[in-house]
Amino acid sequence: MRKTSLDRLNSAKKAEFVSELGAIYEHAPWVTEAVSDLRPFATVAALHEAMTAAVRKAPREQRLALINGHPDLAGKAARAGTLTADSTAEQASAGLNRLSEQEFSDFHRLNDAYRKKFGLPFIVCVRRHSKDSILRQFRLRLENDPEAEEDAALREIFRITALRRDQYVEAPDRLKVNGRVSTHVLDTCNGIPALGVKIDLLELSENGDRRTITTAQTNDDGRTEAPLIGGQPVPIGRYELHFHVADYFRRLGLPLADPPFLGVVPVQFSVADPEGHYHVPLLASPWSYSTYRGS
Amino acid sequence: MRKTSLDRLNSAKKAEFVSELGAIYEHAPWVTEAVSDLRPFATVAALHEAMTAAVRKAPREQRLALINGHPDLAGKAARAGTLTADSTAEQASAGLNRLSEQEFSDFHRLNDAYRKKFGLPFIVCVRRHSKDSILRQFRLRLENDPEAEEDAALREIFRITALRRDQYVEAPDRLKVNGRVSTHVLDTCNGIPALGVKIDLLELSENGDRRTITTAQTNDDGRTEAPLIGGQPVPIGRYELHFHVADYFRRLGLPLADPPFLGVVPVQFSVADPEGHYHVPLLASPWSYSTYRGS
Amino acid sequence: MRKTSLDRLNSAKKAEFVSELGAIYEHAPWVTEAVSDLRPFATVAALHEAMTAAVRKAPREQRLALINGHPDLAGKAARAGTLTADSTAEQASAGLNRLSEQEFSDFHRLNDAYRKKFGLPFIVCVRRHSKDSILRQFRLRLENDPEAEEDAALREIFRITALRRDQYVEAPDRLKVNGRVSTHVLDTCNGIPALGVKIDLLELSENGDRRTITTAQTNDDGRTEAPLIGGQPVPIGRYELHFHVADYFRRLGLPLADPPFLGVVPVQFSVADPEGHYHVPLLASPWSYSTYRGS
Amino acid sequence: MRKTSLDRLNSAKKAEFVSELGAIYEHAPWVTEAVSDLRPFATVAALHEAMTAAVRKAPREQRLALINGHPDLAGKAARAGTLTADSTAEQASAGLNRLSEQEFSDFHRLNDAYRKKFGLPFIVCVRRHSKDSILRQFRLRLENDPEAEEDAALREIFRITALRRDQYVEAPDRLKVNGRVSTHVLDTCNGIPALGVKIDLLELSENGDRRTITTAQTNDDGRTEAPLIGGQPVPIGRYELHFHVADYFRRLGLPLADPPFLGVVPVQFSVADPEGHYHVPLLASPWSYSTYRGS
Repeated sequence: MRKTSLDRLNSAKKAEFVSELGAIYEHAPWVTEAVSDLRPFATVAALHEAMTAAVRKAPREQRLALINGHPDLAGKAARAGTLTADSTAEQASAGLNRLSEQEFSDFHRLNDAYRKKFGLPFIVCVRRHSKDSILRQFRLRLENDPEAEEDAALREIFRITALRRDQYVEAPDRLKVNGRVSTHVLDTCNGIPALGVKIDLLELSENGDRRTITTAQTNDDGRTEAPLIGGQPVPIGRYELHFHVADYFRRLGLPLADPPFLGVVPVQFSVADPEGHYHVPLLASPWSYSTYRGS
Repeated sequence: MRKTSLDRLNSAKKAEFVSELGAIYEHAPWVTEAVSDLRPFATVAALHEAMTAAVRKAPREQRLALINGHPDLAGKAARAGTLTADSTAEQASAGLNRLSEQEFSDFHRLNDAYRKKFGLPFIVCVRRHSKDSILRQFRLRLENDPEAEEDAALREIFRITALRRDQYVEAPDRLKVNGRVSTHVLDTCNGIPALGVKIDLLELSENGDRRTITTAQTNDDGRTEAPLIGGQPVPIGRYELHFHVADYFRRLGLPLADPPFLGVVPVQFSVADPEGHYHVPLLASPWSYSTYRGS
Repeated sequence: MRKTSLDRLNSAKKAEFVSELGAIYEHAPWVTEAVSDLRPFATVAALHEAMTAAVRKAPREQRLALINGHPDLAGKAARAGTLTADSTAEQASAGLNRLSEQEFSDFHRLNDAYRKKFGLPFIVCVRRHSKDSILRQFRLRLENDPEAEEDAALREIFRITALRRDQYVEAPDRLKVNGRVSTHVLDTCNGIPALGVKIDLLELSENGDRRTITTAQTNDDGRTEAPLIGGQPVPIGRYELHFHVADYFRRLGLPLADPPFLGVVPVQFSVADPEGHYHVPLLASPWSYSTYRGS
Repeated sequence: MRKTSLDRLNSAKKAEFVSELGAIYEHAPWVTEAVSDLRPFATVAALHEAMTAAVRKAPREQRLALINGHPDLAGKAARAGTLTADSTAEQASAGLNRLSEQEFSDFHRLNDAYRKKFGLPFIVCVRRHSKDSILRQFRLRLENDPEAEEDAALREIFRITALRRDQYVEAPDRLKVNGRVSTHVLDTCNGIPALGVKIDLLELSENGDRRTITTAQTNDDGRTEAPLIGGQPVPIGRYELHFHVADYFRRLGLPLADPPFLGVVPVQFSVADPEGHYHVPLLASPWSYSTYRGS
């Protein structure tokens, strides 16, 4: 899909409207068709609402077909490279394209168990998750009864399509589908924002893996130019910030112990709400620091 | 060596005195002999002082022989198991008995370079060091000139013997040879000491190794029953405390996010002064914490 | 009363025992007499327990007489100087000898209302209270029914006598009748205890009065030599600590703003539990500080 | 003076330009005249620069006359009500219209001493000062030699006129003449901004006076809708913030002690730089808090 504007979608011919927007619902252009005559939409929220409603009131067989149109997570299609472009990118975002053999077989086993119990593929909006939290969702949702699970699958589809819509449709409004991780470093010794502090953001996995997601530098307001994570959901998972404070204080000429008492300050936190704003500041001196969920 | 009292040493026959205390100076019973007639010693500090003075005023050849009586660090004697019992225990304390092949060859190379430059074995009081800081000392001291290095070697020997004396001689006084790592956990949400918080202390190596040294639990004053490290020098190096705060707050019935924002709080710090007291408290709520070097 | 030892009381003749200890129960030597034959008491707690039990099982008229033997708070007897020495000292401890005319008339009015409702003098263990909290107790207890109030009066008498016993009887054990206010100042810029910080402790009244109770200086461990309040109950009330931090940092030669951002740091807190330990540390830099109820 | 735009000033006739802007320089329309032909000015900074330069290059007698055109602080003219409107408002901003008899006589004495030494009125940009800091400036500047003091007087005049210009001239740019006091309250127990916390800002005087400048309430981001002080210089002086935290936590239903350990949290700080941004956040639980100069 390419980026397009709501205006253009509102004024396009029906065929064009469906062709432009069709891929939002994986293998289900009928959802787009169903709302074509409801145009124009004033906001992308109204468009999203209409498509969601169209799915809700479709016959159950059609809804099940929609669910069944989705690929397995880390499944054969993924390994064979036959996923849609969107699905490929989404699965990669949660690291499902970097699984170990053990993890592949875990996914395989859970996919099978899920299909066996519900007769459906397991659907989750992977952009909101890390590998660990997908596996946890898998286990939790295997406990559901079939009715609850059909509903859960639809809600995940609505999340997936909201994100695709946010990505592809330019509109005056924004859907509340993105979260943020940001920080702010204060030098409590000098009462100033700490300038030039190197910060790494790592994603931690339960198997002990530690992957650096991004590295940034604080500006003269003690903040990074851009959020450490922004413009996307923050995957549910565990993170660690590394603040290189000794380098900062050394540059200022403060006398430090050798090695310095605080070298790199690790701050570990978990994200439970992918659409939340996780502002995690650091107030630091060479011998002490505080951190907290800020706003 | 077995533990003995200063009283007993003061009243022992000379031969016995030398035999009891001789091993303090590695392969150099003459140092003990030299101070035998100066008995009685009122304090272990006075005994230490006297033996140090005896070394200082011995002829240079004898001092060099004393230095030369020490084994290489992580050297052939260590691998062959022919070290004295004290040396074996000391080298193990810094993990020199757990080196990788790469690290063995680093030590081997540095030992050779040092012997080539100074004609002496490299001596360092290993109980005050981690593997990383020994390697750092090696590199720093290779820059010294021979005279400074002879002096450095003697000072390390005095540290080694002070520690052995602290270990083996019961006296009314204590030499200031030990440091301490301790902590204290306060629950800032409830204004009380945090009871039953699990705490791990890890030693971190520059090669990425993370070794758990000890695990403890806070008591009803928010402290551990014993210091995390105590009764010995704290090896120069990098450490990480892990405070299991989510388990604590969950037990108290506080509503936490899922996963909790703070699960395990890591606090990383370095020790520069092995005889120092490193008190590292944590003031924590489910959403914030502070830490600092306390007293 | 003069100080005496439990041993001496245990072995004294009955008359002497009663004469030594009689004043503990205001105008009621019979309580002491009642327990004389139960001697010896192993602990002061056992003695206290026995006297409390004697009061509890005395006929109601005798208990009421005991209550009625107590003087009005800030009443005519106090103004006329006809109180017992203990009562005089106790009422002074809560500042009842320094009331304004308005406050005198408040007490007078409340004493009258209380006597009118219950036929008893209002009794409260004043050493556990400030003027403000006594007035608050007055208003709260005026709501009680007579039975609850008889019981409340006895409980206060037991507190009064426990304190007198703690004051006058030397014993192997101590009754848990005292609280404590203490502090600890850490210099977070230098990672050391702050030495020589001047600290004032003020008592704040609801009428705006601010009275300095004590002034102290931190030692090289960042603590005051003695608790700011200790060896007595900490009166329920509002307090303010003043930490003279700018003077400290100036002495260390740190560059400060002019005037310094933080000059004197006020920390205001209230005491609800007179037998509690209120440890209120300060972690300070020239530009930031933290405080908390510690342990 | 009334508010006018730079555009309008640029295109006005000379007489009108002088009449509109003349009062910026107290009793000295010649400064405005001197720059009339340099119009148009692209920015208010350029206009300010030009007028400053005109003063600097005027003959010394004219500069002295400019200085002499200013009234005494808290002087006879002020008491008699014969000041210009601007001067009246400015002197009131520092509380010079609320002096005690003692303070009036202090100002009188210092005015006389200053005139006697320098033959000039003492000029200070009072909007940047509190009463206490004006008195301090008086004493400091009485130590100057005449040349330095003429320069100091001019610099203060430039500050006064910059502020008047900022107040009266609408332009695309702003002179950097204003500071700010702001705050932010985080609830560390719940990891959220504290909503609805009442905050008072007081100005403290050395004579013990405590004057409430403003009272505000935090919004759902934990901030006040407007800065506590903004759009003006922050007078050099001592301030105290009062955060009503117990009311906040009680509203949330947290169990508090009675009385609560922390009721109103006072945070005292001094302003040294009237054009600075003093951001003073509070991170609070019912039992602990931190504050710092933020950004």
